[in-house]
Amino acid sequence: MAYEVSNKTTGRETMTRMVGTACDWLRACGAGCLGAGAVIASTGGATAAPAACDATPETARHHHLPANDGTVHWGWLSKSLEPELTVHPGDLVTVETLTHHANDDASRMVQGDPGAESVYAWTADKKNVDRRGAGPMDASVFGRGAGEGFGVHILTGPIYVCGAEPGDVLEVRILDVRPRPSGNPEHAGKSFGSNAAAWWGYHYNDMIEEPKPREVITIYEIDATGALDWAKAVYNFRWVPQTDPSGVVHETIDYPGVPVDHGLVEENHGVLEGVRVPIRPHFGVIAVAPAEAEIVDSVPPSSFGGNIDDWRIGKGATMYYPIGVEGALLSLGDPHAAQGDSELAGTAIEMSLTGIIQVQVHDREDLPGTALEDLAYPLLETEDAWVVHGFSFANYLEELGATAQQDIYEQSSIDKAMRDAFRKMRHFLMTAKDLSEDEAISLMSVGVDFGITQVVDGNWGVQGTLEKSLFPADTD
Amino acid sequence: MAYEVSNKTTGRETMTRMVGTACDWLRACGAGCLGAGAVIASTGGATAAPAACDATPETARHHHLPANDGTVHWGWLSKSLEPELTVHPGDLVTVETLTHHANDDASRMVQGDPGAESVYAWTADKKNVDRRGAGPMDASVFGRGAGEGFGVHILTGPIYVCGAEPGDVLEVRILDVRPRPSGNPEHAGKSFGSNAAAWWGYHYNDMIEEPKPREVITIYEIDATGALDWAKAVYNFRWVPQTDPSGVVHETIDYPGVPVDHGLVEENHGVLEGVRVPIRPHFGVIAVAPAEAEIVDSVPPSSFGGNIDDWRIGKGATMYYPIGVEGALLSLGDPHAAQGDSELAGTAIEMSLTGIIQVQVHDREDLPGTALEDLAYPLLETEDAWVVHGFSFANYLEELGATAQQDIYEQSSIDKAMRDAFRKMRHFLMTAKDLSEDEAISLMSVGVDFGITQVVDGNWGVQGTLEKSLFPADTD
Repeated sequence: MAYEVSNKTTGRETMTRMVGTACDWLRACGAGCLGAGAVIASTGGATAAPAACDATPETARHHHLPANDGTVHWGWLSKSLEPELTVHPGDLVTVETLTHHANDDASRMVQGDPGAESVYAWTADKKNVDRRGAGPMDASVFGRGAGEGFGVHILTGPIYVCGAEPGDVLEVRILDVRPRPSGNPEHAGKSFGSNAAAWWGYHYNDMIEEPKPREVITIYEIDATGALDWAKAVYNFRWVPQTDPSGVVHETIDYPGVPVDHGLVEENHGVLEGVRVPIRPHFGVIAVAPAEAEIVDSVPPSSFGGNIDDWRIGKGATMYYPIGVEGALLSLGDPHAAQGDSELAGTAIEMSLTGIIQVQVHDREDLPGTALEDLAYPLLETEDAWVVHGFSFANYLEELGATAQQDIYEQSSIDKAMRDAFRKMRHFLMTAKDLSEDEAISLMSVGVDFGITQVVDGNWGVQGTLEKSLFPADTD
Repeated sequence: MAYEVSNKTTGRETMTRMVGTACDWLRACGAGCLGAGAVIASTGGATAAPAACDATPETARHHHLPANDGTVHWGWLSKSLEPELTVHPGDLVTVETLTHHANDDASRMVQGDPGAESVYAWTADKKNVDRRGAGPMDASVFGRGAGEGFGVHILTGPIYVCGAEPGDVLEVRILDVRPRPSGNPEHAGKSFGSNAAAWWGYHYNDMIEEPKPREVITIYEIDATGALDWAKAVYNFRWVPQTDPSGVVHETIDYPGVPVDHGLVEENHGVLEGVRVPIRPHFGVIAVAPAEAEIVDSVPPSSFGGNIDDWRIGKGATMYYPIGVEGALLSLGDPHAAQGDSELAGTAIEMSLTGIIQVQVHDREDLPGTALEDLAYPLLETEDAWVVHGFSFANYLEELGATAQQDIYEQSSIDKAMRDAFRKMRHFLMTAKDLSEDEAISLMSVGVDFGITQVVDGNWGVQGTLEKSLFPADTD
């Protein structure tokens, strides 16, 4: 299935190379390029349940969804994507996910890994995964490349969940998460990740050392066997302009998957010497397909989940998502080895991971009276806590209208995300825990912790954490 | 020693009873009423070291500083306050602190407790602690009462620390924190606290149930022996107008220590049934005297510490403060049994506590090369972590000038506090941990957690937490 954005801009003369959002494109393109009501010519679509849904198996199955150039979509979500896998509620899926930063050090994170090699394959003649982002295929905005990098994450899927209908809730249990070992024999037994302190980071225009501003990549090493629970830095380098195989020069980190020429950068070894970063393997992105728009930038999280970037979404966690479209169309990606609350510099330790998940569907008719009643937001349950995720805009595609996918990058604040997190936690306490508003508000003030999930994903996030121990009767 | 604000406003006709800040007063009063450069007629002052500093004792002493009407100041800080106790570095102090919410239920939190009774004593003829807040003594702004409630916390002290000089760092170790038992025989073995969901809360103009808006007090019970590590709600009530002993009617919670007439409110028992709130006993306020102004509202935290409201500042914690004035002039108060990050509704479980602290002075000449080098902000060390406290304005008295103490209530945001917390954590990593800026920024993105301390104290707060385990060489 191929997409064509029907309103193309013409001419490269307007393609000012800028670091930022796609405002110019939008202005040239008019409302409707992206956002709610986007005009997309789709040549196909998942309009009917796959045949695999016809018969319900007697026992749950365990599927394997590899990550390769045939199973991933890069930088965008869409309700019209063909499913890569169809599962029944209760099924398990081993799902491979690849970091979109692997080409920061291809020898450690791509080479010798057939899946990663197929996804990253890019020569002057052939680019296996052409679209990277929700922008125009002809790169008519900034000329960065197909999709313009308006969205950056390599996402595996989507997975069609039989019986999932709009209004239902999809449960995704994360049973296991493991590092993807380097495929390079030189690095056997190790995994690697990349942290980019990039132009979209919170720090970027507030630096003290020269040269300013600058982008810095730090490569981290993680024990692939799981024996060590910490990561260490291997080296860092400052980004210098990189010419991609198609001949486009990337002055900054503005397009995902650009291979870094290590002949051009200066590797500084011995950085962060002796520092052990506790690993918190998790998926930055788990998304159901948004109903509000046809093709959606993978960066801003929203009511459909997506790029929440909460390190708590790891092994043992369960996520609940309001389903927007038939089959839910679940995608996973943006794997992280470790991240701090705020993701200050723009990224985590971005490292490929393989997870085992189990999916369940909660029918909308069964929700009243449960913790999932009126669930309009992604909800996390861990062994110890319930966590709501507030965003600057709870459903930015709906709230910001036709220009949502540009405007979101200019209208976010932590204050707004805190407001949303407060409302969501109040909703949870009043529905799931049956408290009055007065009870809920007092409890939030004395026993719920609000933290800053991220300030770098367009739609900024604040999470509210409610420890289950506050309700001993529920956990006895 | 008595204070008189020299610029008094005249007439009550301008005293619109408003919920909010003291803008009207400021406009009438002109720049200089409060804030940096405030004009205060002081009849005395701690200008010379107390005689107790003359001889350095051979061994540390353990002092006891009770809380009573002679040892507390209510709602304000000042560099000109006479010390209530003089100590040498290394000395221990058992310091009693009283919650300013005890009169929400006097039978449980005041009655039978001589210290609390002396502080709260207030009849038509006599009010033992008259000034409550940094406003004018004649209540010429809003007519709430002496000090106008521009600052609310009952603060014990100040404590003069011999040898402490501006530019030095004061270390305050919190060796123990214990609940203050109810003095009422009916409640033997129990302690009580009050949570006020009040007009300055983050939720106040964003409620869903009627009547709106409303203020709600929830009384919590805590085991005074320390055997139970959780609090439970006893009852709640909605605030209704209360007439104080001086005859002033308080439509809202606008002046601290107003006795609540329980014949006027409806107690709802059975609220939050079965809920156990984990207790986190800590001091909301630990402050050294600000150098920037003469008399300072106790609500907004700043570079001098003050009302940081971080629940991590409890037993086992060590705080470091840049010293502004000779002797440091340390005050403690605003004791909390429990609080969530954000203190959403405006208060914690406000409960009287007694602590044991030990003070040390780090001479400014000894700071270079240590974790305290160039320390311009309050820094927390726990057993496991270093925590920086960012505020919307790092030093609001200095940054906002003459009208700082009014303006701070209208200019805060979490975004600004996050910016400040980022800068402070970067500073700490680059000085205490000797990292380059690039190393510090990468580490903050992958291994430091930023959370929302409070959004209710005028100068909003974000804390950044760095686990010590990241630096194993320092902890081996």
